[in-house]
Amino acid sequence: MNRYLTLAETLGSRIEQGLYETGQRLPSVRELSSEHGVSLTTVQQAYRWLEMAGLAEARPRSGWYVPPARKLPELPRMGKPNLRPTDVSDWGQVQDLLDLERDSETVQLGRGMPDVESPSLRPLQTALAREGRHAGIASLHYNDIQGVLALRDQLCRLAVDAGYEITPDALIVTTGCQEALSCAIRALCSPGDIVAIASPSYHGMMQILKEAGVQVFEIPSDPVHGISLEALEVALDRWPVKAIQVIPNASNPLGYTMPEHNRIGLIRLAQRFDIPIIEDDIYGDLVYGWPRPHALKALDEDGRVLLCSSFSKTLAPGLRVGWIAPGRYFDKVLRMKYTSSGPTAPLPQIAVAEFLQKGHYPVHLRRMRRQYQRQRDVMTEWVRRYFPEETRISQPQGGFTLWIELPEAFDTHALDSMLRANGIVIAHGNIFSATGKYRNCMRLSHASVFNSRTEWAVQKIGETIGEILSSKRESKTCLNASRCLLPTVSP
Amino acid sequence: MNRYLTLAETLGSRIEQGLYETGQRLPSVRELSSEHGVSLTTVQQAYRWLEMAGLAEARPRSGWYVPPARKLPELPRMGKPNLRPTDVSDWGQVQDLLDLERDSETVQLGRGMPDVESPSLRPLQTALAREGRHAGIASLHYNDIQGVLALRDQLCRLAVDAGYEITPDALIVTTGCQEALSCAIRALCSPGDIVAIASPSYHGMMQILKEAGVQVFEIPSDPVHGISLEALEVALDRWPVKAIQVIPNASNPLGYTMPEHNRIGLIRLAQRFDIPIIEDDIYGDLVYGWPRPHALKALDEDGRVLLCSSFSKTLAPGLRVGWIAPGRYFDKVLRMKYTSSGPTAPLPQIAVAEFLQKGHYPVHLRRMRRQYQRQRDVMTEWVRRYFPEETRISQPQGGFTLWIELPEAFDTHALDSMLRANGIVIAHGNIFSATGKYRNCMRLSHASVFNSRTEWAVQKIGETIGEILSSKRESKTCLNASRCLLPTVSP
Ligand SMILES: Cc1ncc(COP(=O)(O)O)c(C=O)c1O
Ligand SMILES: Cc1ncc(COP(=O)(O)O)c(C=O)c1O
Repeated sequence: MNRYLTLAETLGSRIEQGLYETGQRLPSVRELSSEHGVSLTTVQQAYRWLEMAGLAEARPRSGWYVPPARKLPELPRMGKPNLRPTDVSDWGQVQDLLDLERDSETVQLGRGMPDVESPSLRPLQTALAREGRHAGIASLHYNDIQGVLALRDQLCRLAVDAGYEITPDALIVTTGCQEALSCAIRALCSPGDIVAIASPSYHGMMQILKEAGVQVFEIPSDPVHGISLEALEVALDRWPVKAIQVIPNASNPLGYTMPEHNRIGLIRLAQRFDIPIIEDDIYGDLVYGWPRPHALKALDEDGRVLLCSSFSKTLAPGLRVGWIAPGRYFDKVLRMKYTSSGPTAPLPQIAVAEFLQKGHYPVHLRRMRRQYQRQRDVMTEWVRRYFPEETRISQPQGGFTLWIELPEAFDTHALDSMLRANGIVIAHGNIFSATGKYRNCMRLSHASVFNSRTEWAVQKIGETIGEILSSKRESKTCLNASRCLLPTVSP
Repeated sequence: MNRYLTLAETLGSRIEQGLYETGQRLPSVRELSSEHGVSLTTVQQAYRWLEMAGLAEARPRSGWYVPPARKLPELPRMGKPNLRPTDVSDWGQVQDLLDLERDSETVQLGRGMPDVESPSLRPLQTALAREGRHAGIASLHYNDIQGVLALRDQLCRLAVDAGYEITPDALIVTTGCQEALSCAIRALCSPGDIVAIASPSYHGMMQILKEAGVQVFEIPSDPVHGISLEALEVALDRWPVKAIQVIPNASNPLGYTMPEHNRIGLIRLAQRFDIPIIEDDIYGDLVYGWPRPHALKALDEDGRVLLCSSFSKTLAPGLRVGWIAPGRYFDKVLRMKYTSSGPTAPLPQIAVAEFLQKGHYPVHLRRMRRQYQRQRDVMTEWVRRYFPEETRISQPQGGFTLWIELPEAFDTHALDSMLRANGIVIAHGNIFSATGKYRNCMRLSHASVFNSRTEWAVQKIGETIGEILSSKRESKTCLNASRCLLPTVSP
């Protein structure tokens, strides 16, 4: 990592821990330079970064100070519960999001894509190249439907960090987490069945449910505790729910990591109503705190949790290497996997297994977690600076997306169209709901290393929101004056 | 290609064309050596190969002769029509087939795996390695759900050879042909719907239908014309069939390539009953005759043919690169593709696109077609030599599998278990049926370059069949004598 970032992190955590008081002068550039044995420029860079993150304030010709304590921005509110299960609404908007921008100038803040340009991924490229060059029977032929054994061995070691034990024969490698989720749903549900899902939730999951003909019961989730157990209990009590779907760790899009107490409550409910839980742990290894939180599966006593995950967020989505630990639903899921796409391509599996086996994974993760956390701070600060005051912001515990809530009447879908004309892509809120909720919300990704255009883009988004809001206020005033709407009819 | 094989092919086709009469002495080794400018050993190798293929006969101390014309072995019989649609029976046996033998000594004649060790695949490995080494955004990120554009461009050029025109935006790259077929079925059918399928047919398709909860109407197919149009018409007339599924070119497992007349009849029927056709063209480029036969899609007038294919048989299954041209069902299929596994991995797509774009594909195909045809001849000859006389054998027009029919009461499933103990794997017939038909049939693959163990394996299969048959006859005799079954009850 860059020297200045290391320094900034040290200083930043001191400030956050309250070692300096509000308004207090921070150590001078010269002091820090000699204390840490780094150049003056490095210290200045570190301070500029702290300023960006809202942790230091420059006073001209005087130095750097602890800025006045500001109250944290408010968290997004929990959605309202639905009265009944519903069909998933259409997918045209998801397709818009997935459309690739062919223009390299575009600032892509919409898609949940990790940074794949980190040097810590280099050994993976080497492994891919080696495996490609020697591509022999093992990587060119059909492989085991369950996936390459060497990879499953490594996945068992990762499971230990996630708090559960598993053997290679209880795991199935899938073509991304998408296939894992899709096989889980199709193994558990038939068309017309009902699935309870934490809301807001990953748009790809909504589409899986839609195409499986499954009805969705959206359970409101708050940005700290996750799925509302009260609302879930009501739903389970009244409806024949076939499965519960949650993202307990660094949830997409809200970023919460469910507290232990809520996890236990969730498992108890599932046991009481005898319902399987589909856990999406794709962001689990990217929770900023270390060691990583356990998977929900760690609490599973009777094989009812189907854990789905992939390396799409931690390494690279283009690998399409995911997995599922389907518990007691193993046989049915394996059949679904076979009919869905046959065995998963062995070459990337072999390369990933090598990457893991050689110990590159924790190194890479450490680096990415830091980058994502740092950039979360910076992006949060930008949003506070450039967005209207009423804006609510999530405080993600991991991953690389921020969830932002604007005033109730706001429509981020319209905003998205305006921004695209300016070469900026965001994810508007209603694709994260089966029923078109969260129109006033959006998700911003902060994965790729920020460049000069990133701040510009966030500022532009903020300004555009401001303009829309004020033109709305004007037209309201106008409406109130009940004149503007009457056309002047020419005789 | 080896010199001796070139020579053997030249001579072989002269013999097949009848340039030498039965019993006539063929040119001497010395003559051929000087005529073709090759060594004596080369000519001897060529003759030994011709002998293996049943085209020449050695007479000690005299030379090589055209063997007496033997009548071709009889073709397998067409199955009996079903009376009604049925559910697909269980998949345990498919799973057995897919289980990887961990023992390198095993002779694998069961799975439909191409030879991936041909030097003509070398440029593909180079491309994979290059793309792996430089793996950048394009190959590590999510890509277009429709697939890498450079590949779709190349697929459009291949479509021309298959007799239809298409643009890249009408194509969707899939994770193997399996995903293409699976998306097609799920786009067209709901659980309980009926699909009419040529029988026998690819076991993976059976499983797709099973997992989609679809009922199957098996339409008997003969080893020359393919699906029986009469039986199909009866089925369409009586039942609300939702889709027709066929493999018109080098069909798996029977090997027929449907004559033009039958194709037209099939399309007409589909039009009359307004039913879509799912065409599996995965073996189309491996039909031995050149130019390759058209796809059924070439006759499609109104977008009702969904063509599914992949490079799994022509290049390598481990690539997991397939595609679908879904005609008028494009939107629905694209959604199914997205929910099934997200976008297909870009790296192998880019490598395949490069392989095609640089012109390596036709070179590779030419080589493989020859190898597969040559080995079909040799394997046919071995089956004639080592199997009981009643054995019926298909005459595949392409691909690398032979379909073999044994006397009616024979059970190849039991045979399979016996052979596995000897390190030989075959595909027993009933996995190619939804209703457990073809118990007396089996499929033998002749893709990999034969080695000394291959002939041994075919001989072993033949002998084992012989033993089973004669022990059956004995126990029958025994039964007729109505004695053996009565146990000697000791007082
Ligand atoms: C929560 C969640 N689950 C699953 C997926 C799909 O992952 P994959 O690319 O591995 O199929 C995503 C990707 O956006 C995601 O955010
Ligand atoms: C006729 C047929 N269709 C489809 C497939 C599946 O192909 P893929 O490996 O590309 O998914 C096979 C493979 O055995 C096949 O024989």
